[in-house]
Amino acid sequence: MVRFGDTDAAGVMHFHNLLKWSHEAWEESLSLYGISSLEIFPNSNNEKTLEILLPIIHCEADYIKPLRTADCLDIELLPFRLDSSSFRVKTKFLLDGKLVAQGLIQHVAINSESKLRCQLPRCIDLWIESSSVNKSPMPL
Amino acid sequence: MVRFGDTDAAGVMHFHNLLKWSHEAWEESLSLYGISSLEIFPNSNNEKTLEILLPIIHCEADYIKPLRTADCLDIELLPFRLDSSSFRVKTKFLLDGKLVAQGLIQHVAINSESKLRCQLPRCIDLWIESSSVNKSPMPL
Amino acid sequence: MVRFGDTDAAGVMHFHNLLKWSHEAWEESLSLYGISSLEIFPNSNNEKTLEILLPIIHCEADYIKPLRTADCLDIELLPFRLDSSSFRVKTKFLLDGKLVAQGLIQHVAINSESKLRCQLPRCIDLWIESSSVNKSPMPL
Amino acid sequence: MVRFGDTDAAGVMHFHNLLKWSHEAWEESLSLYGISSLEIFPNSNNEKTLEILLPIIHCEADYIKPLRTADCLDIELLPFRLDSSSFRVKTKFLLDGKLVAQGLIQHVAINSESKLRCQLPRCIDLWIESSSVNKSPMPL
Repeated sequence: MVRFGDTDAAGVMHFHNLLKWSHEAWEESLSLYGISSLEIFPNSNNEKTLEILLPIIHCEADYIKPLRTADCLDIELLPFRLDSSSFRVKTKFLLDGKLVAQGLIQHVAINSESKLRCQLPRCIDLWIESSSVNKSPMPL
Repeated sequence: MVRFGDTDAAGVMHFHNLLKWSHEAWEESLSLYGISSLEIFPNSNNEKTLEILLPIIHCEADYIKPLRTADCLDIELLPFRLDSSSFRVKTKFLLDGKLVAQGLIQHVAINSESKLRCQLPRCIDLWIESSSVNKSPMPL
Repeated sequence: MVRFGDTDAAGVMHFHNLLKWSHEAWEESLSLYGISSLEIFPNSNNEKTLEILLPIIHCEADYIKPLRTADCLDIELLPFRLDSSSFRVKTKFLLDGKLVAQGLIQHVAINSESKLRCQLPRCIDLWIESSSVNKSPMPL
Repeated sequence: MVRFGDTDAAGVMHFHNLLKWSHEAWEESLSLYGISSLEIFPNSNNEKTLEILLPIIHCEADYIKPLRTADCLDIELLPFRLDSSSFRVKTKFLLDGKLVAQGLIQHVAINSESKLRCQLPRCIDLWIESSSVNKSPMPL
């Protein structure tokens, strides 16, 4: 559901909010798969214990139709493993079954101490495999 | 659910996001009550037809405990009619049943043409009455 | 200067962005006074070394006139010490010399280890004193 | 200057804020060139009179180094005309002279009534030409 606070003075969704939604849809998908945010995202309690960080190194978005307050969107998540240390998550936004926008976020795994590239966490590997098979859209 | 994108470098929710959640909880409550966002919020399609606008003239927030990524909050909405043209919505945020933060947003009704104060829309009056009776918390 | 990305579909500034500006005006004022952000705000490099944190425990805002893209605002900062461990910063937003909105943010000093209230950092005490004397508005 | 409110719980700039900065840098550049925001961006006063809108149809960003609160960035704007109705603005973010991130925003000109593609506004054409010649970095 597009919220009033996500729009701008052109009366439509402000452009970079789409990438915020893409990220939130990814968090939601991990959570539904059973991966706790605490294993993946730093916060002021766990930052000393996270071994692997997953910073974003690239993102992009395409805007096909304007999105307005109260539009109810379906979201389809399409994760794709690039190599042993990086992956992309494509997010398709559908309004009444038609593609209206899409986002893409690319993460790389780095060791939190050395800051060097490392293998993706096992749980992320499993989530990518699982999501590639079962890719039904979920509501925003 | 507190999202990673709602936090700041102190590892906790960035302060003014609480007011964003308060507004979204209000939009959600109106929608559950059967009031379409299109009757209340301007967008690039309806702005010539909305007779009454509900701008915010005051807001405030109190922060009792730090909120972290993945905290699951319950929200309790407490609307209160101030006079014939204005109302407040208090939003309580609960973690494990304990109050951790609260927001308050005050709206005034104005005529979209004259910009003068006017009576609250009938549907908002009814929503306030209904919500004052039935105030069960809803999950974020 | 009000930016397009700070507005919403009502064509005016989205309400909680005012508090974002209040916070940024405070950061700017500290910086002009000679206090480095690194002494005050946590980031991923300094979080083990900051002894005192300054979380926000309350904020509020009043909206007097609608603010539109390209409005050029002057900001006046009015800090006020409440007691040995807390202070408020009031921020007045002026358009053509007239008050159009104001924000208020209240901070408390806590020890980063014990999480107990403590004395304000000396540099903040000095900044409050200095700002109370010399309170010329600065442009947004 | 990276502000505290632009960071997330990983202690660094939250990713989509880069695109917010790219857009603000563009607004700033137009303004320095003498183009008023009122000619380009809709607001609640001018929306009936803008003949041409410039919606964003694509954006992307690359993150090379983490950005922290108080980092002072230089910005370099590189506009590029794609055809008679569309253009891209690349934004390079430099820390101590080194590229740390870059954004790219692509706009298309549409007629505000018919919603069909149209020629870029003359002032945008001139700004693109001028900026392509004189491309000194400006501070954030």
